[in-house]
Amino acid sequence: MKKRPLILVCNDDGITAPGIRILIEIMNTLGDVVVVAPDNPRSGMGHAITVNTTLTCNPTKVDNGPQKEYSCSGTPADCIKMAVHQILKRKPDLCVSGINHGANSSINVIYSGTMSAAVEAGIESIPAIGFSLLDYSWDADFTPAKPYVKNLAEQVLKNGLPEGVVLNVNIPKLAKTAIKGVKVSRQARGNWKEVFDKRVSPQGEDYYWLTGEMVNLDHGKDTDLWALENGYISVVPVMFDMTAYRFLGELNNWNFSN
Amino acid sequence: MKKRPLILVCNDDGITAPGIRILIEIMNTLGDVVVVAPDNPRSGMGHAITVNTTLTCNPTKVDNGPQKEYSCSGTPADCIKMAVHQILKRKPDLCVSGINHGANSSINVIYSGTMSAAVEAGIESIPAIGFSLLDYSWDADFTPAKPYVKNLAEQVLKNGLPEGVVLNVNIPKLAKTAIKGVKVSRQARGNWKEVFDKRVSPQGEDYYWLTGEMVNLDHGKDTDLWALENGYISVVPVMFDMTAYRFLGELNNWNFSN
Repeated sequence: MKKRPLILVCNDDGITAPGIRILIEIMNTLGDVVVVAPDNPRSGMGHAITVNTTLTCNPTKVDNGPQKEYSCSGTPADCIKMAVHQILKRKPDLCVSGINHGANSSINVIYSGTMSAAVEAGIESIPAIGFSLLDYSWDADFTPAKPYVKNLAEQVLKNGLPEGVVLNVNIPKLAKTAIKGVKVSRQARGNWKEVFDKRVSPQGEDYYWLTGEMVNLDHGKDTDLWALENGYISVVPVMFDMTAYRFLGELNNWNFSN
Repeated sequence: MKKRPLILVCNDDGITAPGIRILIEIMNTLGDVVVVAPDNPRSGMGHAITVNTTLTCNPTKVDNGPQKEYSCSGTPADCIKMAVHQILKRKPDLCVSGINHGANSSINVIYSGTMSAAVEAGIESIPAIGFSLLDYSWDADFTPAKPYVKNLAEQVLKNGLPEGVVLNVNIPKLAKTAIKGVKVSRQARGNWKEVFDKRVSPQGEDYYWLTGEMVNLDHGKDTDLWALENGYISVVPVMFDMTAYRFLGELNNWNFSN
């Protein structure tokens, strides 16, 4: 009999977030699950790691499921490092991160703690998927996402992923019947139109809240933003070799002599 | 007469770090300089942004140079957002980040606060360069790097960079005469071999320090690690479209039906 796969689960909303509880519930049907997740929300952490201070990581029990769980004081990337190098006896067959409360499409892959966990697993040569639902609310309805999350995890367990590639999956906020299916997509070119909400403290000092809205600068119909706006789940294969190969040739023609 | 270029300077070691002071000194010879940098070291911040707490950003004066300076409570990426959307009247002609005390070659581009500032500027369509010296010490000797930093900034001011591309420049810790020149490179495949240094607090609780060493998994002679090990300054063009285009076709053959 084939051994049950070992599945590592992480997120950036914190170990008690509804999104990770649903993800754990699904993964328990596919394999042996170990959760190593932040003890508190870490949104917008990008690929931060903790180098200037200490980390704690302790066993915990959040529900009655069969999974093993560890609550970690660090970032999502720290959690994966801690899992791989300190907690787990062998390399997991799959790492899943999320389900994030809120989108991580387009350029948000750069800012996303959810995706940083998946990317960190990818760096460790573990097939990995980040899942995000386009609903920021704590009581978001993850039910329509469930069969798709399970299917994608099964596909990655079965097919593997090429070295250096992880998947970024975003799920629209729609009823199950309204989701049109899965669309393999590229990362849309987009950015944030930032507005700094300037305020004055009771002590008379200026301070700011970062706010803003995502702007889609990309009119392609093959992007993740297009897929999501049109009722599809987007699946973007993400690589962390960030070399702009197409520019190497031209750059070699520059005059670097002093 | 052509207008002097507007140059935005940032880093992740903090506004008083010797590396950024040298960078400002060089940029003052090329244009009008505005510095927006973290008030404290932010190493290993990756592409973190501050969304769950407030930011402060105040004018400051560190030395007698002609540049304008702002000290910001946020991450390097926050500093760039603050500069572009709150402080500057027009888009800068160039953004430079660093000079970092320590390497940001290979996979470190993912963990690097220095590079996150450059990437954030790139997202805002500002030509950008991150500079790092392979010397972690506070009193590192930046003198041999100076002519190369100036030349690269001049080249980018003159040639521009393609949309979506920024430069990651790493400088070996060598005397000026020992530096062999500049090598356009790709990002080496490498990772960190982590060791968690486990300790026990006076209260009897386990805690960890993240330590480790960079491992080069790449035998190519066209990589940044090869260039640096062989006495060259490495210049990697970095893109933040992380789509793994080569895998799109195969992924489309997967069975996504539930």
